[in-house]
Amino acid sequence: MRSEEVYEKLKQWVEDNRSHTMLGAPAQYIPALANQDRDQLGICIMDIDGDTYKAGESDVTFTLQSISKIISFVALCHFKGLDFVLDKVDVEPTGESFNSIIPFEIHRPGKPFNPLINAGAITVASMLPGDTVSEKYERFILFVEGMIGHSLELDQEVYESEWKTAHRNRALAYYLKESNLLDLDVEEALDIYIRLCAICISLEDLAKIGLVIAHDGYDPIEERQIFSHDVARIAKVLMVTCGMYNSSGKFAAHVGIPAKSGVSGGILASVPPKWHSPEKAFRKGCGIAVFSPAIDANGNSAAGTMLLRQISEEWDFSIF
Amino acid sequence: MRSEEVYEKLKQWVEDNRSHTMLGAPAQYIPALANQDRDQLGICIMDIDGDTYKAGESDVTFTLQSISKIISFVALCHFKGLDFVLDKVDVEPTGESFNSIIPFEIHRPGKPFNPLINAGAITVASMLPGDTVSEKYERFILFVEGMIGHSLELDQEVYESEWKTAHRNRALAYYLKESNLLDLDVEEALDIYIRLCAICISLEDLAKIGLVIAHDGYDPIEERQIFSHDVARIAKVLMVTCGMYNSSGKFAAHVGIPAKSGVSGGILASVPPKWHSPEKAFRKGCGIAVFSPAIDANGNSAAGTMLLRQISEEWDFSIF
Amino acid sequence: MRSEEVYEKLKQWVEDNRSHTMLGAPAQYIPALANQDRDQLGICIMDIDGDTYKAGESDVTFTLQSISKIISFVALCHFKGLDFVLDKVDVEPTGESFNSIIPFEIHRPGKPFNPLINAGAITVASMLPGDTVSEKYERFILFVEGMIGHSLELDQEVYESEWKTAHRNRALAYYLKESNLLDLDVEEALDIYIRLCAICISLEDLAKIGLVIAHDGYDPIEERQIFSHDVARIAKVLMVTCGMYNSSGKFAAHVGIPAKSGVSGGILASVPPKWHSPEKAFRKGCGIAVFSPAIDANGNSAAGTMLLRQISEEWDFSIF
Amino acid sequence: MRSEEVYEKLKQWVEDNRSHTMLGAPAQYIPALANQDRDQLGICIMDIDGDTYKAGESDVTFTLQSISKIISFVALCHFKGLDFVLDKVDVEPTGESFNSIIPFEIHRPGKPFNPLINAGAITVASMLPGDTVSEKYERFILFVEGMIGHSLELDQEVYESEWKTAHRNRALAYYLKESNLLDLDVEEALDIYIRLCAICISLEDLAKIGLVIAHDGYDPIEERQIFSHDVARIAKVLMVTCGMYNSSGKFAAHVGIPAKSGVSGGILASVPPKWHSPEKAFRKGCGIAVFSPAIDANGNSAAGTMLLRQISEEWDFSIF
Repeated sequence: MRSEEVYEKLKQWVEDNRSHTMLGAPAQYIPALANQDRDQLGICIMDIDGDTYKAGESDVTFTLQSISKIISFVALCHFKGLDFVLDKVDVEPTGESFNSIIPFEIHRPGKPFNPLINAGAITVASMLPGDTVSEKYERFILFVEGMIGHSLELDQEVYESEWKTAHRNRALAYYLKESNLLDLDVEEALDIYIRLCAICISLEDLAKIGLVIAHDGYDPIEERQIFSHDVARIAKVLMVTCGMYNSSGKFAAHVGIPAKSGVSGGILASVPPKWHSPEKAFRKGCGIAVFSPAIDANGNSAAGTMLLRQISEEWDFSIF
Repeated sequence: MRSEEVYEKLKQWVEDNRSHTMLGAPAQYIPALANQDRDQLGICIMDIDGDTYKAGESDVTFTLQSISKIISFVALCHFKGLDFVLDKVDVEPTGESFNSIIPFEIHRPGKPFNPLINAGAITVASMLPGDTVSEKYERFILFVEGMIGHSLELDQEVYESEWKTAHRNRALAYYLKESNLLDLDVEEALDIYIRLCAICISLEDLAKIGLVIAHDGYDPIEERQIFSHDVARIAKVLMVTCGMYNSSGKFAAHVGIPAKSGVSGGILASVPPKWHSPEKAFRKGCGIAVFSPAIDANGNSAAGTMLLRQISEEWDFSIF
Repeated sequence: MRSEEVYEKLKQWVEDNRSHTMLGAPAQYIPALANQDRDQLGICIMDIDGDTYKAGESDVTFTLQSISKIISFVALCHFKGLDFVLDKVDVEPTGESFNSIIPFEIHRPGKPFNPLINAGAITVASMLPGDTVSEKYERFILFVEGMIGHSLELDQEVYESEWKTAHRNRALAYYLKESNLLDLDVEEALDIYIRLCAICISLEDLAKIGLVIAHDGYDPIEERQIFSHDVARIAKVLMVTCGMYNSSGKFAAHVGIPAKSGVSGGILASVPPKWHSPEKAFRKGCGIAVFSPAIDANGNSAAGTMLLRQISEEWDFSIF
Repeated sequence: MRSEEVYEKLKQWVEDNRSHTMLGAPAQYIPALANQDRDQLGICIMDIDGDTYKAGESDVTFTLQSISKIISFVALCHFKGLDFVLDKVDVEPTGESFNSIIPFEIHRPGKPFNPLINAGAITVASMLPGDTVSEKYERFILFVEGMIGHSLELDQEVYESEWKTAHRNRALAYYLKESNLLDLDVEEALDIYIRLCAICISLEDLAKIGLVIAHDGYDPIEERQIFSHDVARIAKVLMVTCGMYNSSGKFAAHVGIPAKSGVSGGILASVPPKWHSPEKAFRKGCGIAVFSPAIDANGNSAAGTMLLRQISEEWDFSIF
């Protein structure tokens, strides 16, 4: 498919799906998210040559929020090995809410269900290498910057807002501590976790990360292996089974692309190469980032989800 | 019944029940509790003339722990009125554990189930009058000292141990905060709550408190009303329905005395006056305090519970 | 207090509380209950001489529904002994709904929490003496008829309606069976349970039952012991801690009379003798039955509860 | 890869994994399952030409048990359309047990979480076309027989055992009925559900079904579309996210093949075609059936799971 055609279609589909922003609303718990322009919808696709295809409000930056969970999982596995990480956090989906304490109290599991619920993500963040919160943050940010090729910033206002209102996450983290599922000091664990959520990212950077995950940890542009095939594989499993909060199953059924969403309205998606008919776009896989701040009842970008669904149907991106 | 006979019987019953210490073990979560001599069993009964009847290890002091919950409920009702308090905390028993988050997450109640589970007790402690934790503590301690006639001490070691290991209570308190069930700062609320738990008390003082509750807030020795009849009545209801953790129902069935236990091994019991046959002891009611640090699986003093059961059966103390 | 005065006051209080029927509505799940006249409010009090004091719609009959639970508990204890029964069903309150499966699945208890939730009541009904459902029913009805002095009828229409719509109770009963908490065949256990719920009763008969429970199993009119003091004591404990569904705690706090309600709108209450000032009515205890079919969100008669509260406050009936 | 080599490897891997039968035990709840020879391990792989590759005890037949759930989902979608089915049952994974009532009582969902937990499977079975249980069974069995090319039998003994001991499923089904999630009569719904579980199958037949699912509903041997691509896609999503009980996530991570297990010890697996290097076996996809009756704590064949893991690693079968 020619580039012009890709551009044309993306532009069309963004406009087709913009009205779905009406089906959600920006997250209200902190001002920085609540005050976002709710009508925005933007996308960036990066192919294996590093070419990007953008449409809509594609020059925005936003905070990673829960998208950071899959990246910190990858980073931790890269730094400490898959066995170390899987010994501390399970990879099972859960039908409960991402911040629920119920499964812990009922089942007293030996580890959090998976790294994409808050309990698992706090545990993962707490185990990043480094003796202090700053060192852990530094190591993580260097890992991500290495993947995208330039430096990243923390959104200080978002970080401070989240720190002040993190009562539920504090409850969860102290519960983990009580259950011996958290080695680090609770306030430090929350600090690193909340910092990762508050990192600012552009659609292009996010698409690049999606591309590397899609290619099993290999950066096809720079031609180097950033993290192992095994880590990438499990990251994709987690994105499919748990990446879209409590509509992960429906997203897998109707879209079928490994993806991770955040309450800021971003979605990171990884389209692996596929034994495609030649007329389809992006046969060699791609990374996709979408952004639309109006999120639905499950916490996923309403229009972003619908846009990905249309793209997947049209270009046959489902891995199933 | 003559005093000598009462003494004689108490002494006998303490020895009868001492072996029940084998059915429990001292609480293990902080050293100060874990290191207690597990074989101790002591009792003090105070009648309406202020005469005390003691047997066993009756000169011990120990920290109030959960016994403080019923006293802080009474104090808060006294200071702020019953309506104010019942608007903030319910008076319903719950079959869940005293520190469970499950009922909050399932039912999202508008207030904690009752003031004798941790959630309710933290809320109650947080609302004590005073602008600071120290002022709140001061007001509470003065209230109790007014009832017993001399000053009380905080066990600094217990306080510090509990403060450091209070992960589960922190989880609960942050959950309350998130649910808008706690106005005070979480760390301050925990601080006042944990201080109340760490107050040192003697059996005689505890028996005096039991006596005043038994007499509907009236101190028959000093001949003055310390708190209202209504507050005392609801305190007794709570002691009967929720006072003995998850064996409150069995304690009501087999013992039938309003009582509140703590994990330090103490039990506060209030025997109201009863339309008794004249040959029974303590017809005009009494306060009882027992102490035996080996607690059972529900958190109640194992031998203390059995001793109270025998006393209640022999002297017909059940309110039912 | 003179009889005329008692009549006068009851009449007044019924009218005072009739408007509270607005705060509830008749149970809707079967036509026989849904179609009741929602404005009715009636009361009958029986004293130890067998004299009755009635006001409002006091000549109604209605089905026992959950009121049968406390009577079947008493009957089973009478027939098989307290130890046998307490070995099969606990006496602990639960904050969960009367028909909840959650506590069973979370805690896997060895017995139902108490005989006044459906699980416990089905277990109790299933253990009544007799080889068949008919025999069990016969033994139960003879026990109750012996207490009230004449025969009782089953409301066939109510029985059949409840049998057909008992999906939730079937779920519960099969869950009990799976958990080895039910020896009898499930359909038979449900049959006897639902029959007991469908027995028709008058206010006067219910007041008589309340009187006998209040007097520790002794019938002061016929001057004979119908069941043991111990059984009556535990029945009163259960009525106080679990008798009014999930507002049992509030009822104990504000009314303080052992009572059991049913969704038909009836309440059975037992006022024990009390060391009263002579000017109060019913110093020697009484049985009370109220009926008002509009039930509140917890399942208790809305106006009936308020009427009992006023009576208890005026005549100081609380056991606390 | 040459056929001889495939045979050789399969034979080797079966022997490599046979000792893993020690990590489980046959299901105990009915005699027909409990009495199976626990050391068995057999496999059959069918390629797109219809050639089969067998090793171990490969001539066994066993009852479908939970494997029927994915087939009945496919059949119902085929008969009534995907939209009809997805309107009645969700496709979300749940961390709770396959027979749990907790999520229903906590969340009161409008439909069962997914068709592979018992609640969803009972709902699905109940909606199969046909006016009677026999007709529904007939339609289902004809659908499956059409796929495998010969007739199937019901294991009457297993059916009757399961019918008699299905207390937990009855509880669940009556709960569904109460929640308006089941239109059919409960006993009929259970009857059809239990019949499907009791259908006898051979490894070869099961491999054929796996092959058709792997090829998006297309039978490459008979060269005809049996059910739609869309139905097959969602079947594969469900197998990945929910197919292996509460270790579905770990199976996806470590094996990565869409699969469904049953407590009889069978596993149905569907390996889609993959853009493979030519030296790998089964590049054009295959169906796999394994059988080993010793099941682990999650309900999955212990040795069967390990055998699939080895095969997937060696031949790179993971879809991730």
